[in-house]
Amino acid sequence: MKMGQGVEWSIHCCALLAVLPPGRTLRLEKIAEFYELPVPYLRKHFQALSRAGLVKTTSGPRGGYRLARDPDQISLLDIYLALEGNEPAFRCGEIRRQGAPACAQKLYPVPCNIATSMWKAEAAWRKELSAVSLIDVVQQAAEQIPQARVEASKAWLEAALD
Amino acid sequence: MKMGQGVEWSIHCCALLAVLPPGRTLRLEKIAEFYELPVPYLRKHFQALSRAGLVKTTSGPRGGYRLARDPDQISLLDIYLALEGNEPAFRCGEIRRQGAPACAQKLYPVPCNIATSMWKAEAAWRKELSAVSLIDVVQQAAEQIPQARVEASKAWLEAALD
Repeated sequence: MKMGQGVEWSIHCCALLAVLPPGRTLRLEKIAEFYELPVPYLRKHFQALSRAGLVKTTSGPRGGYRLARDPDQISLLDIYLALEGNEPAFRCGEIRRQGAPACAQKLYPVPCNIATSMWKAEAAWRKELSAVSLIDVVQQAAEQIPQARVEASKAWLEAALD
Repeated sequence: MKMGQGVEWSIHCCALLAVLPPGRTLRLEKIAEFYELPVPYLRKHFQALSRAGLVKTTSGPRGGYRLARDPDQISLLDIYLALEGNEPAFRCGEIRRQGAPACAQKLYPVPCNIATSMWKAEAAWRKELSAVSLIDVVQQAAEQIPQARVEASKAWLEAALD
């Protein structure tokens, strides 16, 4: 089971938008450049983030992106769901209803307990992701990023911002 | 993100093997018939379950399958890992190291905090799955399956067992 690369890219890119100075935006091409990502794929991911109400574009010839909500109001789960959708990873095919043992009673009154267990585990996974916001990501990263890289990024951003 | 269908099929089929009378086995074709599943796909999944040490075949012309361990020693996580492997769903591409801001310092002393958060959520998911054994699955199912279906399955199994 593999998550799409768009989740990783989008979390990093949204964390970048979370540190923009108030009122400023960053064009998609510049966001892609910051992480050396291919623009066409990233554009597709940003369209999904936009549809989910996580990012906004400003109008105008130099319209760039900014977060649509405060970064403490955007969780890793929000970003995952924007990119991968709300379908559970485990899909129940109700195979308990089919098969050789002939039986008129094909209707089960309650959901299959196997599916229920699988979905309970997914709920635990989602709960963890919903507890981490972009503010957490930025604060944790600040403790990890080498100072030289922080300075280089600040200088680069200053020139790249709209 | 979608889990392979093999996980669902394998959990159901292993739960079926969990209720075989001691010393008895069931051929792959019969297991497939019980759930109306295609034999070639199911064979592939059973090869994975066998490699992971979860099921065993008996030798001989009518060699069938049985569980390789007691059903309380086989968890939903064991079956998931046998089918889908041990790779995390979230793969870290270390994109924090690449990109436009020129910086000689490309080495980060600790794993990316985004990956760490994603993997923490996966650990919570795995913990839930590891807490459910085939015995739990069988006991929960026993409370859900209509009595007519239980009787039909017992009769069918009696004739199908090796």
